[in-house]
Amino acid sequence: MTQTDTLLEAPPALVDATRVAVSTVIFTLGRKTGDENAAVLLPLVLRTRDPHEGLWALPGGWLDALEGLDAAASRTLAETTGLAPSYLEQLYAFGDLGRSPSRVVSIVYWALLPPDEVDAQVAAHAAAQNAPENVTWFDAARLPRLAFDHNQIVEYALWRLRNKVGYSRIAHGLLPEEFTLAELREVYESILDRRLDPANFRRQVDGSGNLVPTERFRTGSHRPARLYRYNQDVELADRGPLTPRPDPSLKRAR
Amino acid sequence: MTQTDTLLEAPPALVDATRVAVSTVIFTLGRKTGDENAAVLLPLVLRTRDPHEGLWALPGGWLDALEGLDAAASRTLAETTGLAPSYLEQLYAFGDLGRSPSRVVSIVYWALLPPDEVDAQVAAHAAAQNAPENVTWFDAARLPRLAFDHNQIVEYALWRLRNKVGYSRIAHGLLPEEFTLAELREVYESILDRRLDPANFRRQVDGSGNLVPTERFRTGSHRPARLYRYNQDVELADRGPLTPRPDPSLKRAR
Repeated sequence: MTQTDTLLEAPPALVDATRVAVSTVIFTLGRKTGDENAAVLLPLVLRTRDPHEGLWALPGGWLDALEGLDAAASRTLAETTGLAPSYLEQLYAFGDLGRSPSRVVSIVYWALLPPDEVDAQVAAHAAAQNAPENVTWFDAARLPRLAFDHNQIVEYALWRLRNKVGYSRIAHGLLPEEFTLAELREVYESILDRRLDPANFRRQVDGSGNLVPTERFRTGSHRPARLYRYNQDVELADRGPLTPRPDPSLKRAR
Repeated sequence: MTQTDTLLEAPPALVDATRVAVSTVIFTLGRKTGDENAAVLLPLVLRTRDPHEGLWALPGGWLDALEGLDAAASRTLAETTGLAPSYLEQLYAFGDLGRSPSRVVSIVYWALLPPDEVDAQVAAHAAAQNAPENVTWFDAARLPRLAFDHNQIVEYALWRLRNKVGYSRIAHGLLPEEFTLAELREVYESILDRRLDPANFRRQVDGSGNLVPTERFRTGSHRPARLYRYNQDVELADRGPLTPRPDPSLKRAR
């Protein structure tokens, strides 16, 4: 059967039974109360109705017939959590049979947000309207059983994140504009879920040519630490032909 | 509106208007008649009905309500072209408004097939049943205007391919089990669409540790050239938590 035949002769009942949803994995860096080490955190929404009432799920919702996939991801994320990252990347489409009581294909997006941006966006959202209820930030490596196949989705997103820190400047997405080497190392340690030797780490980063030292220092209870920023000549996430045109209203290129 | 509300209150008419299709980009290496240099080729199917009657399109079809995404990609590819790669990787979900007269989200898969495997699969399919009509192999870098947004999809797949050769052994997917350095260089040249210096290329490949020399040689009109194979210790394409269990019936690990 050729594509053309399939397009016209597929039984409408079977075709229409499949619905498209979008979900989003937002990673940030933070500390759970009482924990000394930073961890990769993500926001989950408590389900208050069936299916899977009482379980936590990724923020998301149905694809609207009149919006693109990227727009649907941004809209549903904002509606459920108040978060509005400047850039969401498509991660993967999940469509196994049995992942939901009805037939649902979920297009999953993801983004990295620095902690200061998370705080600002959540605060702005709470000021503008009622704060989103039933949203909690979880340690991505220590999740309870989630609704649907969302444990598998988070596991896959974490795996992609761990691979990306190896060959790109993806860690930048979790840092403010300027940061110390200790803060950068903490990002890597959280993503990789293991400790790194500070001296080795400094050597590797110095040799990479990705960082530009500034003349500013972080001061506090420890001795002053120099602040660095990333070399802006390289794009953080190159999507090739899919790259949307840059939005000049955005303060940071992410 | 939380995800739970959206799940239950979305107007069914809007939700059901969206249909899910799968399409597949199959890349191989070959020469168009009269062309000295090898090129990246892909199979396209001629559309014999509207929409876009008379234009070429990627092989594909509708997602069946009772099959997973991977299975749908394999099935529709086999139905339209007779090709059955041992491994299809999900590339991207395309869902812009206006990409089709009706609302269609296409989950696109891709695979690399060595030319010898393409020949064998096409021959086996032609022997078993009527050969697929209206299938032609095109030079991926020199396509006519395709149906729907399929030009953009191929452009994106080529971009991903060009990025992948830089940091992985993806070129292996276009080669037979054993190959000469000249054949390996030809794969890179085809993907990158530019000539590479043979001596520099040999030095880089020798230094990578990815290749194992054999004691066999390719003989013919030129002087004998040593055959190499890839070091099998490393997986060709690591999908992390999504890796399906290996199928012992497959001869080659791809």
